[in-house]
Amino acid sequence: MEDIVSLCKRRGFVFQASEIYGGLAGFYDYGPLGVELLNNIKQEWWQAMVHEHENIFGVDGAIIQNPKLWEASGHIAGFTDPLVDCKNCGARHRADHLAGTDSTDLLELKKLLTDKACPSCGKKALMEPRKYNMMMKTWIGPVEDDSSIAYLRPETAGSIFTNYENVRETMRAKLPFGIAQIGKAFRNEISPRDFIFRVRELEQMEMQYFINPKDEKESYERWREFAWTFVTERMGINEENIQWHEHGPEERAHYAAAAHDIYFKFPQGFKELMGTHDRTDFDLGNHQRVSGKDLQYYEEETKQKFIPYVIESSMGLGRIFLAVLINAYCEDEQKGEKRIFLKLPEHLASVKYAVSPLLKNKPELVDKAREVYKMLKEKYGAVMWDDNGNIGKRYRRQDEIGTPNCVVIDFETLENNTVTIRDRDTTEQKRVSIDELTNR
Amino acid sequence: MEDIVSLCKRRGFVFQASEIYGGLAGFYDYGPLGVELLNNIKQEWWQAMVHEHENIFGVDGAIIQNPKLWEASGHIAGFTDPLVDCKNCGARHRADHLAGTDSTDLLELKKLLTDKACPSCGKKALMEPRKYNMMMKTWIGPVEDDSSIAYLRPETAGSIFTNYENVRETMRAKLPFGIAQIGKAFRNEISPRDFIFRVRELEQMEMQYFINPKDEKESYERWREFAWTFVTERMGINEENIQWHEHGPEERAHYAAAAHDIYFKFPQGFKELMGTHDRTDFDLGNHQRVSGKDLQYYEEETKQKFIPYVIESSMGLGRIFLAVLINAYCEDEQKGEKRIFLKLPEHLASVKYAVSPLLKNKPELVDKAREVYKMLKEKYGAVMWDDNGNIGKRYRRQDEIGTPNCVVIDFETLENNTVTIRDRDTTEQKRVSIDELTNR
Repeated sequence: MEDIVSLCKRRGFVFQASEIYGGLAGFYDYGPLGVELLNNIKQEWWQAMVHEHENIFGVDGAIIQNPKLWEASGHIAGFTDPLVDCKNCGARHRADHLAGTDSTDLLELKKLLTDKACPSCGKKALMEPRKYNMMMKTWIGPVEDDSSIAYLRPETAGSIFTNYENVRETMRAKLPFGIAQIGKAFRNEISPRDFIFRVRELEQMEMQYFINPKDEKESYERWREFAWTFVTERMGINEENIQWHEHGPEERAHYAAAAHDIYFKFPQGFKELMGTHDRTDFDLGNHQRVSGKDLQYYEEETKQKFIPYVIESSMGLGRIFLAVLINAYCEDEQKGEKRIFLKLPEHLASVKYAVSPLLKNKPELVDKAREVYKMLKEKYGAVMWDDNGNIGKRYRRQDEIGTPNCVVIDFETLENNTVTIRDRDTTEQKRVSIDELTNR
Repeated sequence: MEDIVSLCKRRGFVFQASEIYGGLAGFYDYGPLGVELLNNIKQEWWQAMVHEHENIFGVDGAIIQNPKLWEASGHIAGFTDPLVDCKNCGARHRADHLAGTDSTDLLELKKLLTDKACPSCGKKALMEPRKYNMMMKTWIGPVEDDSSIAYLRPETAGSIFTNYENVRETMRAKLPFGIAQIGKAFRNEISPRDFIFRVRELEQMEMQYFINPKDEKESYERWREFAWTFVTERMGINEENIQWHEHGPEERAHYAAAAHDIYFKFPQGFKELMGTHDRTDFDLGNHQRVSGKDLQYYEEETKQKFIPYVIESSMGLGRIFLAVLINAYCEDEQKGEKRIFLKLPEHLASVKYAVSPLLKNKPELVDKAREVYKMLKEKYGAVMWDDNGNIGKRYRRQDEIGTPNCVVIDFETLENNTVTIRDRDTTEQKRVSIDELTNR
């Protein structure tokens, strides 16, 4: 992980948020190369979900919604972590971490913590553990009182459910159909950790698929398949780095009847990357109850009315970003020297081409290289000019950020309009004509 | 405006957030067609700013930053609206609106409000006006106290300034260079209004250009030019719908030495669409002071050190989205009937092609149409299948959402592999071969 964190900072993928002010735990900014990779991942997902499915529609909901939404979703009551306060020094700790358990049962935690000392002051002065809501709170409007409290959404799914009826109607959609969303969510984690793996401000890509309950099993299996295919084929993750993890009954979220995650081999172990969850009619049922709006679906063929079930396909962008980088991170030896390179799929790479003149003090080479650079930049956008240091150093720099193609303009270019193009993974160079470059 | 609001809701561009819970003032969700238009606008801006400029780099910063950032930026002290409370009923009002003035001077407002009654209870019981901070507040971590307060960013610019040094270093950038960002910002407006024009949760596209102070005037003019060109050529806004507005000294934000906005003819009058601001060394100077980090730039050629100046190019996504829709909104008469159509530039349109079989009960037409639909969808993504109602109704439906091309598969298609393609603006139809469709 240290290698990745250091590479991310050194090469402009990820910075600590507000770094010049000492940062803020659990918050990160994506730098110039990071935002390109992030955008490429988002676009690939949007393409796979929305543009390749006739019956999946996008939305972009507000981060702040009417708080009744979170009452209906169960987040106000249930989105909690167990905490314990120290009577002596006032420090607050995660009760389950301190007790060394995965359980969040308050009675069990109380027992396990009986003899524990406070890690901050060392005194045996821990109070009774209690539930602590992880939603971030704010106020809307000029008065800060209970009636104006609002929450930053803890997951994007909420505004998908509240828009179910609007989308169905405006798109004249029939079951099954899905709604997809990419956007930020906030969780007041007590102990954010593992770089961008567990953060307080995260971005999610979620799709909720609305179905006739009779199609529950079939649809669930189909979206499990999609998850595996997306991660391996579209994100280029090697199969040996991922595995299925089925949630046990005690592990599932309050809304899920079944849940299969894809776990990725992060440096801290196999951890959740992408989830497929069967949310049944939990969400629409609760929204119907709390809002008083009829959210039943009328099926013409059978003349039946029912609350649709929901199969959810969900992933955190930070996690897939991190997994893509870790999966691509390679070291080898080239001419006796250690080389770091990112074996990123070309469609995800932050920079597609780097263009260099062989020598930066030969104006005719520089002019020609600028011409090729402009041509490629016009076509691909994410193209970098690099004339710093010798060619070997430039290659190393581009390898480290995963640029698949390095183009060099040399004296032969001036003669026959061909350039060398070097492959990042094999380091092999071949000559191609300039025309070929933009017609690949 | 009512026509636009109604179209947005009816056709799935924009919905009230949490509509089933009665909404939440100042918050909106983008629906299936809205999110496509929004994404197209963002991509066009990113292309124009980042991918077409060698020296402009993207970032994606966190919405929540270390609060010291907002101390340095002046937002904790200065990002305020004047409010006045009623002693009798406890209602709170915008003092300047109530006084019918643009001034935010508290003494002046006090004078103007002397004889006014509270609009809520009718009593003359208004207290002294006072400043009210518009940043939304939350807490980070388990304890809700002063030391854990954080703010939702009121503008995206903040994390551009704090990343200035990181970007300069990792990109080995030399002045002039820019940093661009698209992201959400939050403003606790007392009276959100005019649909998505003035909201509490907004999205911004901002670029800060760091320059040698000696290039101030030239760079400022250049980015004014960019603004005009972007709005007219890339967003397709007609020149008669926009005008320059130069900020007077009393109107400028606390950080700006000069400011030129492009105003768009919104239904409520000419209002701000996009700003070009000269922020001088206000931001980096303050961040250097508050953070204690050296943010000076060392210029090799002159061996001089200085704080770069900043020219900012900034726009709200909701506003340009609204302007693009209003600008495109047309009504005409076709065969004696009123027609609504959106004259959107093709690269911005939410749907590029609609595909229909002439008759939906002829399997051979439907099969062929499905084939064409799949082909186009694979290539363009944003392609809609439409077999509902007669052809005339389908055309009207597509016109209303701005689909530039309607393709119809008829009996002649089965004979010679040609289809009719209809132009949204002229309503003219011509026959083209299917091959031509995907090679346009």
